[in-house]
Amino acid sequence: AKVRVKEKLLKWLATPTFVLLGIILGAVIGALTACFGDISDRLSAIRDANPLYFIPALAIGGAAIVFAYKKWGRWTERGMDQVFAVGLNKESDFPLVSIPMAAVSTWLTQLFGGSAGREGAAMQIGSALSYNISKKLPFENAAHVMLVTGLAAGFAGIFQAPMAATAFALEVLLVGHLELGALLPAAAAAFTACKVSSMLGFHKFSVDLSSLLDASGFSASIFTNEGALDGKFLVKLALMGVLFGIVGGGFAKLLGLSQNFFAKKFPNNIKRIAIMGVGISALLLVFFQGRYAGLGTNLLDLSFGINATGDSAGIANASAAGTADLIGNVAGYDWILKFALTILTLSAGFIGGAVTPLFAIGASFGIFIASMFGTPVALAAALGFAAVFASASNTLWAPILIAGEIFGFNCLPAFFIVCTVAYICNGGQSIYKQKKIRIKI
Amino acid sequence: AKVRVKEKLLKWLATPTFVLLGIILGAVIGALTACFGDISDRLSAIRDANPLYFIPALAIGGAAIVFAYKKWGRWTERGMDQVFAVGLNKESDFPLVSIPMAAVSTWLTQLFGGSAGREGAAMQIGSALSYNISKKLPFENAAHVMLVTGLAAGFAGIFQAPMAATAFALEVLLVGHLELGALLPAAAAAFTACKVSSMLGFHKFSVDLSSLLDASGFSASIFTNEGALDGKFLVKLALMGVLFGIVGGGFAKLLGLSQNFFAKKFPNNIKRIAIMGVGISALLLVFFQGRYAGLGTNLLDLSFGINATGDSAGIANASAAGTADLIGNVAGYDWILKFALTILTLSAGFIGGAVTPLFAIGASFGIFIASMFGTPVALAAALGFAAVFASASNTLWAPILIAGEIFGFNCLPAFFIVCTVAYICNGGQSIYKQKKIRIKI
Repeated sequence: AKVRVKEKLLKWLATPTFVLLGIILGAVIGALTACFGDISDRLSAIRDANPLYFIPALAIGGAAIVFAYKKWGRWTERGMDQVFAVGLNKESDFPLVSIPMAAVSTWLTQLFGGSAGREGAAMQIGSALSYNISKKLPFENAAHVMLVTGLAAGFAGIFQAPMAATAFALEVLLVGHLELGALLPAAAAAFTACKVSSMLGFHKFSVDLSSLLDASGFSASIFTNEGALDGKFLVKLALMGVLFGIVGGGFAKLLGLSQNFFAKKFPNNIKRIAIMGVGISALLLVFFQGRYAGLGTNLLDLSFGINATGDSAGIANASAAGTADLIGNVAGYDWILKFALTILTLSAGFIGGAVTPLFAIGASFGIFIASMFGTPVALAAALGFAAVFASASNTLWAPILIAGEIFGFNCLPAFFIVCTVAYICNGGQSIYKQKKIRIKI
Repeated sequence: AKVRVKEKLLKWLATPTFVLLGIILGAVIGALTACFGDISDRLSAIRDANPLYFIPALAIGGAAIVFAYKKWGRWTERGMDQVFAVGLNKESDFPLVSIPMAAVSTWLTQLFGGSAGREGAAMQIGSALSYNISKKLPFENAAHVMLVTGLAAGFAGIFQAPMAATAFALEVLLVGHLELGALLPAAAAAFTACKVSSMLGFHKFSVDLSSLLDASGFSASIFTNEGALDGKFLVKLALMGVLFGIVGGGFAKLLGLSQNFFAKKFPNNIKRIAIMGVGISALLLVFFQGRYAGLGTNLLDLSFGINATGDSAGIANASAAGTADLIGNVAGYDWILKFALTILTLSAGFIGGAVTPLFAIGASFGIFIASMFGTPVALAAALGFAAVFASASNTLWAPILIAGEIFGFNCLPAFFIVCTVAYICNGGQSIYKQKKIRIKI
């Protein structure tokens, strides 16, 4: 009887404890990811100021990353692979040293101009911390709940988009109706991490899409009453969703093929990253002195007409300048070159993630097809931003929510339509190739 | 080889066919639900104009419903029960006569003042049609995909909220990651049904929440940047979510208990509805001549200060009048009396659904607790509207989306928080007691 009382007590205490830990972890992870992100921003700015100093040394940065992982890393998998390995019980060890390792190697990738994201590192920082704490907890499924919680906090800290972070952590890792246990702790961690990251002054990428659309003579208020939406416009959105789905699904498919191809071609990790690094450096420099280096936020800024200071004045100016300038800023080949260089960078063994480059690919591809559909470029760019992320990551709710959190919520029905269609039209591909966790929480 | 080619062809053709059928069905179901809803609105208005003529006859209306079902209905289960029975393969027959039956019996319930919704009938209209068409299709899982598609169209036609309709149809019927096959057809049907229902001039219940909040000195723009949200305010929202969860979960739990209790007490269906009908009539008249009769849209109008014509001028006037008037319109006991009378009405055997009454219960409960948390009443009412629906129906995405579709998208993060918390804090209850369908699509 004593055992059963204890069991019942544990069951009742689980969720409140997870939520409390989520808040504490959210604060810590929010602070860590804000620092991590801020330093990564500074290093990117240094590289952008002197591309010819840093981009040629990409191979050396890459070799240093692999060397460091071999020397100090006691594990075999990196980035989200490590998270899945732990979640699927293939590994039980997720050493805390992976936090500085993920951060530093992402910084090196950014400093030397590899075309990669950084949310992978942020999510690894979050989940490494939360997983190690879960080991001390007496609750059932503590490891899975806390892994999801840490992922959500990491994503929320780096993008300051807590709703998307909650959905993404659940969608990417779990399969089935498993969210019941992890939903609330993940949401608590995500909102706390976003708050702390924002309080520390870490810059959030956001765009006042309504103002941009107003300036181009297109009112976002048409989405307020979906029944009044033009049928032709709905069909256009669906067709754009198909194209975004093909681009995102194609990215995921080609990334997998490319990773396998180069892993076979250069079985030695250090050789692979060094040789490919030299080639990627050359391509990055040939293609406009680093236009496709790093996260791709430069392409996002160009897509939405944000000036160098990144403030709203920049947005206002862009709006005033109208849409023609926006098209001039982003070239028709931008999306495909960013696409190719990101796949090469990640296949070489650089880490950080693919999400921010996917945002940039989606936005510039959106601009590329905007005239075909006769939609305002800012709208097409924002739709591509969200829907290419949806189809490449094989998630639905996170892209819809991040669109709202970055572009404002006024156009939500448009994002809903393109993301839904893109999610279905991705050919079942995902940049996260691992099986999802099927354990009941 | 010929068989395999045919199989492959069928697999490729399935989704496009489902989507095309979704659009056609969406148009038909949108038109049907608009007519159904419009007549139900007119009957409610007739009852409201002469409550003393109609409410006393509730028992007779109820007896007529049960008699008709016994005479012309060849099936045993009604409303959403029928949908689940077919979906779970407990029944293979879903006769089209259930469309007029569901419509007429909901009309009778409304005319005589039973406190019930009508979305159950709308969803039955949609799914009866779509299920019978699915029988002619050669595709795997056609029955489940088409059931979800019909449900989505019915919900979208009656509420003109296509995103919520898509999510609701998937969440309520299916379990697990099954949406892949049904998501796109359901979305296509929902957007089409919403469009047709709107084109036919069927009135959509919607509230310009931002204006109401502006009038009370609270700016919805605070939700644009979640990192800047006050921590105390986030905690308040979470606590409100807990209360909404208890109310919604309590509703679902008590509805189940009450249905079982009265089914045992009065095993004869006709006797049960007649005897209880007399009692409910008396209560409906005692409590302010029908204030709790019907859908509960009167309480919603009072909650959001909408005048009798239901136009935006009414909203503007209410805003100008400020929040104090809103509190005066809705009494502290309104939510609990609507709660009790809805449970009694549905336990007696009246049909139509529980969703609109749940909206009214949630909104008036929100107003009841608004002062406790110091939030604007209009915000508290809107949050309750969505979150009590979330916890009573055990769905997450549909309530968040319907909040955006009815109140505008500006406050989405607030709805996300209260619905997430309410969804988890409902004690695992649901007004849909049936097991969900676990078949892989």
